[in-house]
Amino acid sequence: MSLRGRTLPIQVGSVVIGGSEDVVIQSMTNTKTDDSESTLHQMKSLAKEGAGLIRVAVPDKSAVESLPFLVRESPVPIVADIHFDYRLALESITAGVAKIRINPGNIGSQEHVKQILQSAKKHGVAIRIGLNTGSVGRVKNRGRYAMKLLGEYIDFFEAQSFHQIVISLKSSDILTTIKMNESCARKYAYPLHLGVTEAGIGQTAVISSAVGIGALLLKGLGSTLRVSIAGDPLTEIPVCKEILRATGLYHVGVKLVACPTCGRTQVDIEALANEVKEKTAHLRESLTIAVMGCVVNGPGEAQEADFGICGGKNEGLLFARGKIVRKVPQDKLVDHLLVLIAETIGVTK
Amino acid sequence: MSLRGRTLPIQVGSVVIGGSEDVVIQSMTNTKTDDSESTLHQMKSLAKEGAGLIRVAVPDKSAVESLPFLVRESPVPIVADIHFDYRLALESITAGVAKIRINPGNIGSQEHVKQILQSAKKHGVAIRIGLNTGSVGRVKNRGRYAMKLLGEYIDFFEAQSFHQIVISLKSSDILTTIKMNESCARKYAYPLHLGVTEAGIGQTAVISSAVGIGALLLKGLGSTLRVSIAGDPLTEIPVCKEILRATGLYHVGVKLVACPTCGRTQVDIEALANEVKEKTAHLRESLTIAVMGCVVNGPGEAQEADFGICGGKNEGLLFARGKIVRKVPQDKLVDHLLVLIAETIGVTK
Repeated sequence: MSLRGRTLPIQVGSVVIGGSEDVVIQSMTNTKTDDSESTLHQMKSLAKEGAGLIRVAVPDKSAVESLPFLVRESPVPIVADIHFDYRLALESITAGVAKIRINPGNIGSQEHVKQILQSAKKHGVAIRIGLNTGSVGRVKNRGRYAMKLLGEYIDFFEAQSFHQIVISLKSSDILTTIKMNESCARKYAYPLHLGVTEAGIGQTAVISSAVGIGALLLKGLGSTLRVSIAGDPLTEIPVCKEILRATGLYHVGVKLVACPTCGRTQVDIEALANEVKEKTAHLRESLTIAVMGCVVNGPGEAQEADFGICGGKNEGLLFARGKIVRKVPQDKLVDHLLVLIAETIGVTK
Repeated sequence: MSLRGRTLPIQVGSVVIGGSEDVVIQSMTNTKTDDSESTLHQMKSLAKEGAGLIRVAVPDKSAVESLPFLVRESPVPIVADIHFDYRLALESITAGVAKIRINPGNIGSQEHVKQILQSAKKHGVAIRIGLNTGSVGRVKNRGRYAMKLLGEYIDFFEAQSFHQIVISLKSSDILTTIKMNESCARKYAYPLHLGVTEAGIGQTAVISSAVGIGALLLKGLGSTLRVSIAGDPLTEIPVCKEILRATGLYHVGVKLVACPTCGRTQVDIEALANEVKEKTAHLRESLTIAVMGCVVNGPGEAQEADFGICGGKNEGLLFARGKIVRKVPQDKLVDHLLVLIAETIGVTK
């Protein structure tokens, strides 16, 4: 069993993080939380795209005032992100959020943290201890220092009999992030929230998140994840899904494998693959479809694929599990593929 | 020392793969190789973008005929990709390529492989043994079977006193790819060429490559890599660079860290980060620049960054190594940043 499977299952509203549950995809709104209509609108879009849990920033009292409405209307549980002011944490808890995210080191005195723990316990609210090497202060080995702080926080939480804990340990340096999470998983049974902080913009953010989060998931760590991309949070969800799919943890819908085009290819693989992707986007079944450029090698190379097509000069091949089904004219390849899939899985378009 | 650092350094024309050398970025042309002008044009673009080694498909005699011209004109060493016909391998070697990529299992009889090894040895040409689980035939555990075949090939190569070997082991399944490469590195000292085969299209290909190749690089494996993306091979190079950067193996130019926007952010981080990225793209110095959205936390959180800016409502902050340099008007942030960088590193724009 992976380390992930041995973590404590933590109830977060209707969602469970940890234990044998699927890895939960999270996102965070970038609207002003006190603009409750815009925030709810974005939450609904994120949930529709696949977010199982959504975090909102609660920087002040007016953000808190939006929470009861958001909690009532949101399709998924809400996490309140709180810094510096323990009263915002207390008020978010009574407003009905399912989880709060705090850094116990910047939320106030031990007495204040104790009040938060008591209230969270009473209301069944989970707490993510969010540690970021960026916020531990000016020390030499920030990764090691963050781990020392984490130990102190967990001791304190447990001394208050509080165990509904999720932990995140982040750094803009991926190697540090990996080390901290490994060290945490060896020591504590609380589930891990994975992320790479300050990941960059656009493709840089996608790649650094895929490398960092992917490496941890492959080590069997992490029960929930968020990919941070500056800009529209909706773009984060497909990236989460692809990272989970690449690490064997997501199985919904079509996995497309396409051979890289090379000098041997006689068709436009990219166009063909895009067409297949588009026309199979409605399928929820876990299927692997291969789009290959080489009639000689294609069916054999892609024998793990459930279905596949090979483009040839005028005539292509339709195959399933490595076996050729039939030859078809090149321009009818995708149509034949869709019919074959529909016939096999019993889905009509 | 990483396993990578303990591999044999393999000479490939003017490039060395393995040992203590930097990880070499590769790509592959998707032009018809017999169209030598188009192929050369693409090779030059790929080399300019950062490819250190370029593979071309050699599917037939007319492709071989382009090779002397390409070898003479190419800015980087050439790898000939050959399947099925050992004579194409022999002819590519005498045409002057620096390396050939073959699967010894599909190139002909042992006698033919022996001829290839003798000629490659005579001409100082390296050989990549390329094994893809897709091409090992219809067996049950294709990963394990591929490793058995690899052992036989290496024994045969070594029996002919041929050691100028690079190895690639690929599968469209990332977990299998990782296992095979780890097992290979434990057993053999030859450098590894990393890749994920049939990685998909667009963002799927980028993410599955980042996860698979990234995980191996983080394990200290891999001396050269190629990211396979269906479509224009030029898009592969920046992805290779970002994967290497994320794993701490690439240090040229600006690493941009941007905090993810959230409800606390008061500026458009994405636009600001894009502007910084664009305006620092000419720098070759290894610099980390942070673009943060929060004047309270920004400078501290990004203290590892060499330079940074924090956007505020009307006024932003300029900082360096976590220390505030000065407040500047929001709309002059990037200008001030560029001047500060130029003054510090002594580069004028």
